[in-house]
Amino acid sequence: MRMVDIIEKKRDGHCLTTEEINYFIQGYTNETIPDYQASALAMAIYFQGMDERETADLTTAMVKSGDEINLSNIDGIKVDKHSTGGVGDTTTLVLGPLVAAVGVPVAKMSGRGLGHTGGTIDKLEAIDGFHVEIDNDEFMNLVNRNKLAVIGQSGNLTPADKKLYALRDVTASVNSIPLIASSIMSKKIAAGADAIVLDVKTGSGAFMKTIEEAIALAKTMVKIGNHVGRQTMAVISDMSQPLGLAIGNALEVEEAINTLKGEGPEDLTDLCLTLGSQMVVLAKKADTLESARTLLQEAISSGKALETFKTFIQSQGGDVAVVDDPSLLPQAKYQIKVEAAQSGYISEIAAEKLGTAAMMLGAGRATKDSIIDLAAGLLLHKKVGDSVQKGEALLTIHSNMEDVEEVKDILINHIKIVSEEVTAPTLIHQVITE
Amino acid sequence: MRMVDIIEKKRDGHCLTTEEINYFIQGYTNETIPDYQASALAMAIYFQGMDERETADLTTAMVKSGDEINLSNIDGIKVDKHSTGGVGDTTTLVLGPLVAAVGVPVAKMSGRGLGHTGGTIDKLEAIDGFHVEIDNDEFMNLVNRNKLAVIGQSGNLTPADKKLYALRDVTASVNSIPLIASSIMSKKIAAGADAIVLDVKTGSGAFMKTIEEAIALAKTMVKIGNHVGRQTMAVISDMSQPLGLAIGNALEVEEAINTLKGEGPEDLTDLCLTLGSQMVVLAKKADTLESARTLLQEAISSGKALETFKTFIQSQGGDVAVVDDPSLLPQAKYQIKVEAAQSGYISEIAAEKLGTAAMMLGAGRATKDSIIDLAAGLLLHKKVGDSVQKGEALLTIHSNMEDVEEVKDILINHIKIVSEEVTAPTLIHQVITE
Repeated sequence: MRMVDIIEKKRDGHCLTTEEINYFIQGYTNETIPDYQASALAMAIYFQGMDERETADLTTAMVKSGDEINLSNIDGIKVDKHSTGGVGDTTTLVLGPLVAAVGVPVAKMSGRGLGHTGGTIDKLEAIDGFHVEIDNDEFMNLVNRNKLAVIGQSGNLTPADKKLYALRDVTASVNSIPLIASSIMSKKIAAGADAIVLDVKTGSGAFMKTIEEAIALAKTMVKIGNHVGRQTMAVISDMSQPLGLAIGNALEVEEAINTLKGEGPEDLTDLCLTLGSQMVVLAKKADTLESARTLLQEAISSGKALETFKTFIQSQGGDVAVVDDPSLLPQAKYQIKVEAAQSGYISEIAAEKLGTAAMMLGAGRATKDSIIDLAAGLLLHKKVGDSVQKGEALLTIHSNMEDVEEVKDILINHIKIVSEEVTAPTLIHQVITE
Repeated sequence: MRMVDIIEKKRDGHCLTTEEINYFIQGYTNETIPDYQASALAMAIYFQGMDERETADLTTAMVKSGDEINLSNIDGIKVDKHSTGGVGDTTTLVLGPLVAAVGVPVAKMSGRGLGHTGGTIDKLEAIDGFHVEIDNDEFMNLVNRNKLAVIGQSGNLTPADKKLYALRDVTASVNSIPLIASSIMSKKIAAGADAIVLDVKTGSGAFMKTIEEAIALAKTMVKIGNHVGRQTMAVISDMSQPLGLAIGNALEVEEAINTLKGEGPEDLTDLCLTLGSQMVVLAKKADTLESARTLLQEAISSGKALETFKTFIQSQGGDVAVVDDPSLLPQAKYQIKVEAAQSGYISEIAAEKLGTAAMMLGAGRATKDSIIDLAAGLLLHKKVGDSVQKGEALLTIHSNMEDVEEVKDILINHIKIVSEEVTAPTLIHQVITE
């Protein structure tokens, strides 16, 4: 087998065999196939695509390129959730305790944030004492006992994906649905999930700018999952504006607590119930999405979801008192209101720009080595479609720096007010179950 | 400027600016741009193409990546000829003396053969004493005096093209018209030609399998030439069967001598007159292709073309006696006839296979280090369209090895005889002058 023939075959629009895909991924991982052939193949895939079987084969080959986490010591069907990345996305903090409360085991391997998107570990560390440095056995025991634990990323997972992603990033072949889908799914599968729920974001703040692209990506990932025996469902959700009201680590923890109490923002609550229902069904704790949703709503109203959150926090060393008194969370020295310059209706809150503004306040990392400010962030008081009076607060900046003029400029420039009434964007565009 | 943005721009079907193309070629030559970005761009060009201006810019950038030969000490307009590669292609041996005889200066830089195609220097070295190891001054003097000299390749010409071609070869992006066209044209321009005549071969034995592809390539090269101020013309000629009757070094020298005497095969003569007429017009030795052709026919009938060949051979140390007595050329020990297994009409003589067969006899190089047998080769007695009787000789194998069974098998399998009459293929499909 020769790599040049594999590239030519794909270039000419033919399907690669399982053997050819394995030959490429194995050779690329062990460096017998050079970067310049891998980048040419990635570009050929960009133009010619891959069918369902090829994409599944590519995913499997990348999974096999490194370690696979074994979660078999955890009872039940392990369901993992993945979001394609957004701003103010507090869903993981809510979903974990919410589905654990109805018996779904959540063995979560999480990462830290970079750029305009946040990371679950950073958010949880806003709770004094909380830590993810636990060993594997303790992690498994905690999941079996509490149905929920979070651990930092470990092991040599999907090295082929890491190499290939870094290469695609510098050769303009990131934006290819089979390549994105296999990259995401290989990581989830290697992390040991039996079943996977995907939150595919769409809109200006998301990687997939159009609904059509997001649907195509979601369908491809669902097909991969089902092809390799990991049941997968997906939701296409809006990321034209930030999700919920809070952007920033401590602010999002408080928002998660409110949501688990049943007092969270409507969009965040709705998305968590939608994604949670899929997780519950995949874990076989309910037969239909409707009955799963009812179970989750009961877990909120009964206080069981909040109780599960408390147990989870306590088990990993966190100060559980924050749940009843969120003022114990890190608080910013300055709270600066940004007011509407005119009366009207909010027509746009540019998600990515607000994520960048929060990062500039210290809520996120500009580079991998940045130190973050857990208290910093933004708290929205308005969402797209809301009416606003001139002088009314659009949002509050939470900052430990007094001078926030630059951030304020970004915010004012990227929250648009118009005179005509505006329809709020649809939150959930589509639910894909097969 | 970032290479990843240049790749993305081309991937998305936009035109690259002159600055972007220069940035790529300069960076790739001096190794600040890695192979993996160059291969991704080449694949993007494969899919999205390049317009006339971009292709000319790429050509110019590759010319400027290395040395440029200065032929300004040679009087007159220097016209170079390039063939896209064929089997039994004796045109250069004929064309040089033929156009030199009517006053066109031919300063030919030539190479050696590889694989199933021959090289002009190898062929000329079949003449005892002939050598191309002359210095630059002597070369220029010879061209000024005799209007014809041949020198081996020297200098660091188009290093960017060499690097890029080697990369494309292993990343399945050879077969792209703007990339092929700029590769060929950059070499000709760097070699100092004022004007260029192209012989673009088409058919089973050629790189361009269809006439449409050959025309597209020819038009692209003619446009590049005119864009960069080197007047260019092209001929699309048939390479579905070998050109002329001889394949092999000494055999082709003899065929060239016969053609210069006016006694050569019809197809070779016709192609040489067609290409030669373009050279004569570009060198401004005639106003029209018709009057140029008349001049060339007169040079043959008057003996001036043959005389020019003699002077050229003598000036570079060759034994000129071979012209009057071709039996002084290297002769093979065995001459083995291959006979027709049935009566009928020749429908196919697969050019590439016959080239390979000749190479196996020692007429060509399997690898760069192979030693060639100047006497070995094939002499056809029939061409496509000819009638043949069972037992009649189709061709004669000239070999210094007694056992030629393997070669014979190839020949028998790739010369097809059918019962119905066959039309000879058209030799010259199109003449492209602008």
